[in-house]
Amino acid sequence: MFDMMNGVGAHEVIVESPDHQWEFSESPLHQIREVLIAYRERIIDLQGDKRFRYTLVFRNYGLRAGASLAHPHSQLISIAVMPRRVKDELKAAKEYFVEKERCIFCDIITQELELNKRVVAENEHFVALSPFAARFPYELNILPRQHCHDFTRMSDEETWGLAHVMRNVLKRVRTALNNPAYNFMLHTSPYPIPRPGRPDYWGTIEWDFHWHIEIVPRLTRVAGFEWGTGFYINPVAPEASTQVLRDLQIEIKD
Amino acid sequence: MFDMMNGVGAHEVIVESPDHQWEFSESPLHQIREVLIAYRERIIDLQGDKRFRYTLVFRNYGLRAGASLAHPHSQLISIAVMPRRVKDELKAAKEYFVEKERCIFCDIITQELELNKRVVAENEHFVALSPFAARFPYELNILPRQHCHDFTRMSDEETWGLAHVMRNVLKRVRTALNNPAYNFMLHTSPYPIPRPGRPDYWGTIEWDFHWHIEIVPRLTRVAGFEWGTGFYINPVAPEASTQVLRDLQIEIKD
Repeated sequence: MFDMMNGVGAHEVIVESPDHQWEFSESPLHQIREVLIAYRERIIDLQGDKRFRYTLVFRNYGLRAGASLAHPHSQLISIAVMPRRVKDELKAAKEYFVEKERCIFCDIITQELELNKRVVAENEHFVALSPFAARFPYELNILPRQHCHDFTRMSDEETWGLAHVMRNVLKRVRTALNNPAYNFMLHTSPYPIPRPGRPDYWGTIEWDFHWHIEIVPRLTRVAGFEWGTGFYINPVAPEASTQVLRDLQIEIKD
Repeated sequence: MFDMMNGVGAHEVIVESPDHQWEFSESPLHQIREVLIAYRERIIDLQGDKRFRYTLVFRNYGLRAGASLAHPHSQLISIAVMPRRVKDELKAAKEYFVEKERCIFCDIITQELELNKRVVAENEHFVALSPFAARFPYELNILPRQHCHDFTRMSDEETWGLAHVMRNVLKRVRTALNNPAYNFMLHTSPYPIPRPGRPDYWGTIEWDFHWHIEIVPRLTRVAGFEWGTGFYINPVAPEASTQVLRDLQIEIKD
């Protein structure tokens, strides 16, 4: 019982550019798109290892966001168990689907576009918004308009749209908040069934889940209250941060 | 649906000493004990407000732990809903109890004392240990030897024991890690039933839960992987940190 478990997994560092000063928000669009395509290719490749249940892609930028290398990079971790937070999100999405027979993320997109108080940016393929119950100041979600549970199924045209919206909002965050540290995390579906173990684990995932990217600027510190409760104190209303980000005049080349 | 919720709650700052330089690990025992008794009295007093389900006591020490005031203080927050992390812990403890008809924390104490690889300090009433699956380097739990679900039921004699063990381990942490920032959080039972709403919510809590204190030195940064998965990467084995803390020669007056 007290022995160490043997581990299996993959951890990859995706070096985004040979240029040490490169950054998402300042990059030509095609370079960002290449990074996104690298995410896609690595996720697909690692799917070949049947021991992996999930691959998480994330980016830690700046010391306060936990970056331990200064050179521009993203990371990817494949794990053999379903992560707890992923499970919670999938479960909640499924419960909503069972109740309403609609995808909760599609409903959020429709409502937010109609209300238009928390939409920071949009283009033909993507919407960037401040979540209604944002845990952190200036937290952002980026979602594809077209329902899809799996990041790797993004069309070529959509990759341009995603590069465009990511550069746009990261530029706004950088300008408004003086180049803050941030994390972003890709939330996509686990590797498709059948996998060994539980073939019916997420039977309706194609309909009930909707991939998205979470961006969290690191402005506040998680402390005793957050660790003790799992609740978050956010001193900035999402409507207020949306206003700030939306009203910014930003200059983007190309 | 998009209106703000009205809030109800309490947030109190417990000023621990008039001395700006005061710190748990350097204090005479009776002063620490008075702080612990203040926790107890405030939790009991706030129980009078039937809208509150739970009171969390915590301490953020140092900038990296989220302390926004330099003067020595603890904090207390009473909330009208059960915190998610508390619920998860209570639920896991209950499941173990249903399975084994024993308290999981009592079992951990027995096993850890027998194995004696992760016990950092102990006295007549309390045990301080590094959790088997510590999320953070040098994370510590302090548990009463005598089974009890509710911090406020601690006997007068036990308050001396708790003050003693807390000072001991916080002194070890301070010495070993060069005065690091840390958080500690009290995990105690929610306010007793009957409360309005769900009278049978935690029917067996007296038997299945065991209050304790979690101490987390802030040495690593929570980043994309942790936010994305809810899993934690801990570069220090708990057996190794235990060894370091246990082997320290510390000098305590009184």
